Amino acid sequence: MKPTLMDPFSLTLDITSGQLKPATSHVQRRLSHMRGMYGDAVAEQTLLEQDDPLIYEVFQYDVPNDNGQLLVCTTVLYPGQVGNEYYMTKGHYHVKADAAEVYLVLSGCGKLLMQVDDRFSVLDIGPGTVAYVPPYWAHRTVNTGRTPCVFLAVYPADAGHDYGRIERDGFLQRVVAHAGEPRLISTHKQAS
Amino acid sequence: MKPTLMDPFSLTLDITSGQLKPATSHVQRRLSHMRGMYGDAVAEQTLLEQDDPLIYEVFQYDVPNDNGQLLVCTTVLYPGQVGNEYYMTKGHYHVKADAAEVYLVLSGCGKLLMQVDDRFSVLDIGPGTVAYVPPYWAHRTVNTGRTPCVFLAVYPADAGHDYGRIERDGFLQRVVAHAGEPRLISTHKQAS
Repeated sequence: MKPTLMDPFSLTLDITSGQLKPATSHVQRRLSHMRGMYGDAVAEQTLLEQDDPLIYEVFQYDVPNDNGQLLVCTTVLYPGQVGNEYYMTKGHYHVKADAAEVYLVLSGCGKLLMQVDDRFSVLDIGPGTVAYVPPYWAHRTVNTGRTPCVFLAVYPADAGHDYGRIERDGFLQRVVAHAGEPRLISTHKQAS
Repeated sequence: MKPTLMDPFSLTLDITSGQLKPATSHVQRRLSHMRGMYGDAVAEQTLLEQDDPLIYEVFQYDVPNDNGQLLVCTTVLYPGQVGNEYYMTKGHYHVKADAAEVYLVLSGCGKLLMQVDDRFSVLDIGPGTVAYVPPYWAHRTVNTGRTPCVFLAVYPADAGHDYGRIERDGFLQRVVAHAGEPRLISTHKQAS
């Protein structure tokens, strides 16, 4: 049987702003969409009562979720903090766990946190960084700078997003400001 | 069985030059590697006797060729002509024919030719173009400008390259300079 052919297409990326046109999906993640993910519950509540800050946006062009197809999206992760913890993405595993992901950072800077089971990894990212999230690793981006951190991501269209494990277990480390500089702190509970 | 885990890594991309560091493979395609692909055999032979011009270079970072992994490479396609035909890449199908490919053009301009069976497609590309090569489509890039055309490509690591079909059959159209402007011409043989 002959496969159904898709037509080729092109999008336009504004390399500075991250705007991808046309995009078929546009997700805005506010603090209220990430309740409980930051370490400082009081700071979170205070921010939610003042307003509900926009933490990040994702522009994506959707294609069929078939093996062999690729999804392209850009993420604009804004600068800011919840208490002393830098703004970050929710982070996720892939449902098809052996699906990798490639990032190209366009502007801004931060850290890419990755983990699988009890292993943890962190990469510094900035303009021109091509970061590779290997199969099986959960991944979260943190903006430690003063400008939006903008990056392009490409990943297999059949990867899927598993947010639940991170919502339940969190990441093994957080990135907080200490004397104005980013510092990693463990989220392990201390034995009492 | 637990899968073997790869460690995360990052590369540095020079967004202007296309240099990807570190790269684990670096391919240089000279005219002698593309004998017979340009339409003007006399112009080709003349150039080969003068020197053997470098047409394009590809810098890639290799990962295991498993389903779910992704390959990242940058291509630097130089400006120039063989007779009146603009410098171009060899072009290929994927061996795993349902593997797509994503391009992000970083600098320069040109055309992305695609074909499958008797269907042909062309996209204009320039800085900020994100071009999607859907599953099954052969793809070739042509530099119609005066500066290098530099683009990042991401594709499934199990895609493979089938150059043979293009070497044998060519593309359905060529891009030639006509009064200094690019023009597409059919390569169909005229009935005599």
